[in-house]
Amino acid sequence: MNQIIVICHSGYGHTKAVAEKVAEGANARLIAIDANGDIAADEWEALDAADAIVLGTPTYMGDASWQFKKFADASSKAWFEGRWADKVFGGFTNSASPSGDKQVTLIALQTLASQHGGIWVSLGLPPSNTKAATPADVNHLGGSVGLITRSPADASVEEVSPGDLVTALRYGERIASVTARLKG
Amino acid sequence: MNQIIVICHSGYGHTKAVAEKVAEGANARLIAIDANGDIAADEWEALDAADAIVLGTPTYMGDASWQFKKFADASSKAWFEGRWADKVFGGFTNSASPSGDKQVTLIALQTLASQHGGIWVSLGLPPSNTKAATPADVNHLGGSVGLITRSPADASVEEVSPGDLVTALRYGERIASVTARLKG
Amino acid sequence: MNQIIVICHSGYGHTKAVAEKVAEGANARLIAIDANGDIAADEWEALDAADAIVLGTPTYMGDASWQFKKFADASSKAWFEGRWADKVFGGFTNSASPSGDKQVTLIALQTLASQHGGIWVSLGLPPSNTKAATPADVNHLGGSVGLITRSPADASVEEVSPGDLVTALRYGERIASVTARLKG
Amino acid sequence: MNQIIVICHSGYGHTKAVAEKVAEGANARLIAIDANGDIAADEWEALDAADAIVLGTPTYMGDASWQFKKFADASSKAWFEGRWADKVFGGFTNSASPSGDKQVTLIALQTLASQHGGIWVSLGLPPSNTKAATPADVNHLGGSVGLITRSPADASVEEVSPGDLVTALRYGERIASVTARLKG
Repeated sequence: MNQIIVICHSGYGHTKAVAEKVAEGANARLIAIDANGDIAADEWEALDAADAIVLGTPTYMGDASWQFKKFADASSKAWFEGRWADKVFGGFTNSASPSGDKQVTLIALQTLASQHGGIWVSLGLPPSNTKAATPADVNHLGGSVGLITRSPADASVEEVSPGDLVTALRYGERIASVTARLKG
Repeated sequence: MNQIIVICHSGYGHTKAVAEKVAEGANARLIAIDANGDIAADEWEALDAADAIVLGTPTYMGDASWQFKKFADASSKAWFEGRWADKVFGGFTNSASPSGDKQVTLIALQTLASQHGGIWVSLGLPPSNTKAATPADVNHLGGSVGLITRSPADASVEEVSPGDLVTALRYGERIASVTARLKG
Repeated sequence: MNQIIVICHSGYGHTKAVAEKVAEGANARLIAIDANGDIAADEWEALDAADAIVLGTPTYMGDASWQFKKFADASSKAWFEGRWADKVFGGFTNSASPSGDKQVTLIALQTLASQHGGIWVSLGLPPSNTKAATPADVNHLGGSVGLITRSPADASVEEVSPGDLVTALRYGERIASVTARLKG
Repeated sequence: MNQIIVICHSGYGHTKAVAEKVAEGANARLIAIDANGDIAADEWEALDAADAIVLGTPTYMGDASWQFKKFADASSKAWFEGRWADKVFGGFTNSASPSGDKQVTLIALQTLASQHGGIWVSLGLPPSNTKAATPADVNHLGGSVGLITRSPADASVEEVSPGDLVTALRYGERIASVTARLKG
């Protein structure tokens, strides 16, 4: 049984709702970065021991939240010792607009994974992009690098779209599947 | 009166429909990159003489079309002589999904403009990203770096969303306004 | 006389050394983001009043430092009211390697500027990239989107390369020049 | 024995010299994209049958060459049928400057791999970034997402730096190793 960790920051709960679905799909432990950008010592140990790490953050002002970045900067200790090398990585981000520069955040997450010497798992789900497509469809935003989800500026946590949640579940399953093949 | 050029490649006509609106807003000349990635000699001269250049391309497989890139590569002659330095630049791209990795194309367009020593004009329109927002709204995709538009995979050229076309018009107007201030 | 602000975070002083040269070239006020990611209330007011804002940060783990990002996230208040719209922007970043994923940071800075509706000034200096080029040359790293500088992992603040410092000075001058043309 | 393909375009031979080292390290077949952006029908079949695909291109004007992009656009047929899903991917790019916006090309390569539903292998080699580092060192440019190499504007094909060539060899070996674990 592989150890998979979903680690995320969530400002208002929407990203957390997505993270829970990714974790469900991957059968993963979910670690929350707190409002000050910190996690506990035993959570750092769990990350060191993990086979796969899935990175999640809202997109604020066109990039990962500062709390997520504080975690990323603190991971430089693990980087220095190569403790996360060859791990499987994936990533996801949520914002209020369909695009909203979420891609820049995904690029930053993928780069962080690469700095650690990781192996990145793409979304692997075709887009639902015909005229008939709705937010209830899988990958209706047309992501590929990782998971992108959307919660309108006035949407409650309960209103994250069902299509986004299913996409999150499937991405979690995919990461678990790739990890099982890579890590045995 | 400033000289502004909108130069674009369009595979199936959707990007061209957007380009025409940008050109209308900017009171610009529209140059079409042909199916072989070429433009005419006098069109190169017009680009050299322009105050502002707006770059447009569909997003195919996560980046600008090869025809657009052939134009970009050929602009290395102008680059070598610094002929496009200090010009005003903007950019736009269209694809079938709301996201669809269009941001990667915008990054490439912005980088091309920077290689030429250009000055980049962002979209400058707030996103329409509440629950009530529809494709008829201005900037309903939530772009910021440049103009992003969407035409579903089965949409005809006539079906480019009215919100996207208005956004294109406004971006053209904005580029003209910035150019007038910069170039006098 | 235009008001230009260079705002930066610096972890160990190298980025600050670069920032001082940019500020010298632009005849700008330098605001330092502190170790907790904060700036003072009057500094926010100065940013609101500025004609141009130049963003600086080290690149840590492939993106801007968390302290810089905390500042960026806090700028969402200015964003919400459109207070920084149409300002001139530029950006710079420093890290220990020639590349070191600094480009990802520049993309993030440029995206932040675009979210605010800004106008971005590229570096505008040709690369020094022949066999004879040394770190004493202007733009020896071959940047274009903004200013990239390098201080080896064991270099002191005094050892930032002279070529990088001259490049910083020239970029500051260029930003002042574009601002003067745009803002009158 | 896994089937690995290195596919690249090379304008003047420098990227090809790097590609040969990657192919040597990965024990891979090398396919050259021709000056018109084409490859042969049997080469497309070999790509469909491959376990891993390593993408290589020079960086021209801040992105992959148009010939490489023509290949990428033509891969939309394989994309449409999901023929390259779950393959292992890696990428490399060469330009005349240490930075030279090569990162934008790597982002484009990584995005292309993600569109195909691939699994991306980072460089996985620590940077040589102290004051004593020279172009003879492994990863002296400080890449992480993929392989970045540099050949000065006036360097012959024989003058690609020994450090870059060793880095290329190691990256090829790493891709082969990850492929063996994933594909069995």
